Amino acid sequence: MIEKRKPLPVKEALKKVMSFATVGDIEQVSLQESFGRYLAEDLIATHPVPPFDRSPYDGFAIRAHDSANAKADQPVEFEVIDEIGAGSVSKESLGQNQAIRIMTGAQMPCGSDAVVMLELTKVYKKDNIVYMSIKRPFHKGDNVSFKGEDTPEGSVLVKKGTCITPGTIALLATFGYEKVQVVRQPRIGIIATGSELLEVGEPLEPGKIRNSNSFMIEAQAKRAGARPIYLGKLADDFETCYKAVVDALEEVDILLTTGGVSVGDYDYLPDIYQRLGANVLFNKIAMRPGSVTTVAEYNGKLLFGLSGNPSACYVGFELFVRPIVRHYLYSSRPHLQKVTAILGKDFLKPNPFTRFVRGSFQLIDGQVIASPVGLDKSNVVSSLADANVFIVLPGGTRGYKTGDMIDLLLFEDQLGSDTHWAESFK
Amino acid sequence: MIEKRKPLPVKEALKKVMSFATVGDIEQVSLQESFGRYLAEDLIATHPVPPFDRSPYDGFAIRAHDSANAKADQPVEFEVIDEIGAGSVSKESLGQNQAIRIMTGAQMPCGSDAVVMLELTKVYKKDNIVYMSIKRPFHKGDNVSFKGEDTPEGSVLVKKGTCITPGTIALLATFGYEKVQVVRQPRIGIIATGSELLEVGEPLEPGKIRNSNSFMIEAQAKRAGARPIYLGKLADDFETCYKAVVDALEEVDILLTTGGVSVGDYDYLPDIYQRLGANVLFNKIAMRPGSVTTVAEYNGKLLFGLSGNPSACYVGFELFVRPIVRHYLYSSRPHLQKVTAILGKDFLKPNPFTRFVRGSFQLIDGQVIASPVGLDKSNVVSSLADANVFIVLPGGTRGYKTGDMIDLLLFEDQLGSDTHWAESFK
Repeated sequence: MIEKRKPLPVKEALKKVMSFATVGDIEQVSLQESFGRYLAEDLIATHPVPPFDRSPYDGFAIRAHDSANAKADQPVEFEVIDEIGAGSVSKESLGQNQAIRIMTGAQMPCGSDAVVMLELTKVYKKDNIVYMSIKRPFHKGDNVSFKGEDTPEGSVLVKKGTCITPGTIALLATFGYEKVQVVRQPRIGIIATGSELLEVGEPLEPGKIRNSNSFMIEAQAKRAGARPIYLGKLADDFETCYKAVVDALEEVDILLTTGGVSVGDYDYLPDIYQRLGANVLFNKIAMRPGSVTTVAEYNGKLLFGLSGNPSACYVGFELFVRPIVRHYLYSSRPHLQKVTAILGKDFLKPNPFTRFVRGSFQLIDGQVIASPVGLDKSNVVSSLADANVFIVLPGGTRGYKTGDMIDLLLFEDQLGSDTHWAESFK
Repeated sequence: MIEKRKPLPVKEALKKVMSFATVGDIEQVSLQESFGRYLAEDLIATHPVPPFDRSPYDGFAIRAHDSANAKADQPVEFEVIDEIGAGSVSKESLGQNQAIRIMTGAQMPCGSDAVVMLELTKVYKKDNIVYMSIKRPFHKGDNVSFKGEDTPEGSVLVKKGTCITPGTIALLATFGYEKVQVVRQPRIGIIATGSELLEVGEPLEPGKIRNSNSFMIEAQAKRAGARPIYLGKLADDFETCYKAVVDALEEVDILLTTGGVSVGDYDYLPDIYQRLGANVLFNKIAMRPGSVTTVAEYNGKLLFGLSGNPSACYVGFELFVRPIVRHYLYSSRPHLQKVTAILGKDFLKPNPFTRFVRGSFQLIDGQVIASPVGLDKSNVVSSLADANVFIVLPGGTRGYKTGDMIDLLLFEDQLGSDTHWAESFK
């Protein structure tokens, strides 16, 4: 009647899951659609930046040595022989004491080697010829942005697997990437189980709760970079569940179920894995919450059996599903970023198992301060809204006091980490 | 020929802009569409959580005082009279030394006041009646989640103006919000000006660069929570620009232009503002980059004239447009979050004007360390991809050394701030 399960250390569980990580196909989207997607290939500078010697200011292009004798009481005069708007190129070539009016971003005209900012000049006309004068000397190269000085052609500017930000978009546009190669988002199927679940629109009934987990993990999947597909809520019935899982595996890359993985009599997931012939990687983890998180592999696809309990479900997703999603999206840093922080509030409970306490961190006076939010009972949903980190309290530790150094895992984060955050764990 | 402009301190500029901030209308979206949108009303607990006394574990519901004499060598026996799956309610009421098998999340049966975890029991049959025994006493309330202990009915769980995260979604679902009241995204029109601009798909030409700014600020607008509408790229022609601006103002809430605000001869924006009769709030700010950032107001709508230069354009958006967008979205913390950090790399240039240096920050050993990225010339785009903060170096300061405390403005951040980050500025 009661199955005995041996809890696996978090570190081992994560290692097992990651050994089945896969990568996605490439698809092409327009530049405008690419925001928030993941680069499938390195972003390469297709030309040098700047692409030509240019003026970073509005002013006048001159030959620097013509200005050598300019002084406050002895201005040097230049004849203005042309003017260049941004995007135009002057056909003129500068001779002695000649200048060309130049706009920000315009190409340096032939013969010029310095730019004088407009505000440092005096402009006037004599006999219908425009002149300008300056009161100090300029050196060759002054106020010139040289071809390639920012970026030589061929440089790798952003690595594949990076999430496309506004800054990345600026680069893609600059280098002519009208279409962008991005990684196809993994399709994550979501099945909720549990006869205690009501639909969100239904009124409460005695003993029942509304299905919040599937909507929550849909949003977690989107945040991770995946495309969630909600496949419905099932009653606690074996055959129905089994068929739903088999059908789902046909159309998704990763399958999540919520609920049905406890050792209760109504929990069918273990039997479904068995009938499928799936390779169950583990069904108990030495952690709280989320100890019942179960992961199985079938034909190269991962099936995550997340807890029915909202907090445990949330933890299970972030710890195990997120790095699989990021790896699929070519990230070289698929793991949660672990940072050290100062505990801002006592947490005195002992931790027989590694505990993931929902917390929020603040940056105060150059320090990272984190505190638990809410009660952190595993069935409490309200604290999820305020949390932006898990505070990781390793198993076998006593309580922690304000001021103690603790580890955080960031979940509102794009940077990630290239190493397992759990690697240093016992 | 040359207009003299008086630079306004950043603090004053921000204050002027914010005095014209408006708020958006409310619209209703489905729960699934609400991720990443902004709540238009407080999220209220529509029932207590838990909604009834329930078991947080799989186990047995008992009357605690029946267990008072249980010892390791003297187990107390209970008759198991019923079992309750999650979502079911038992019709039975517990009598002396009776227990009911209960699943995680199920409602406590009548007469019970404690739960014994399954793993602490021994279950057996005698004469076809199921019994269980325990070896230690339990107290009234042990392992019971009491009605309302997490959240009393009517509590404000998330404030309006908050960005909807996976945790918020869990709460919305729990409390039956099938439809969510969110703020309509402000429509941000974007017009690029500059005859030096090529389309992204065009090959480079002498003197020309590709239009990267409009795509970049489209993405910045999305990140801020707005809906960008790209209205096209214009040549440097006054009448065309003027008509485009007039037409755009009909269909957008906020209008951005890039380029055309320098003091160069080809910059028409000032004349457009004049012909419109717009109220120009300022046309020069004592900051680098982005000193030419111009903001005007016309019939209650804001027109932002951002620089044509990518870095200055980026800064202008984050400093001035973003807080307007967040205010529109009901945020009580619309401003950029300012945090103190330790400078990780020398920045020895003196700062005659307040400088916003693109940087990236890391959290190392409980400390916030930030360093400039790239060369940070104002025409350099490549460093935008790596930046996640502006390092703010106030005007009138000399250079800064590694280890100095500096201020950062975070732009990959949802939390924001309720006060102007520039308030403490001179």
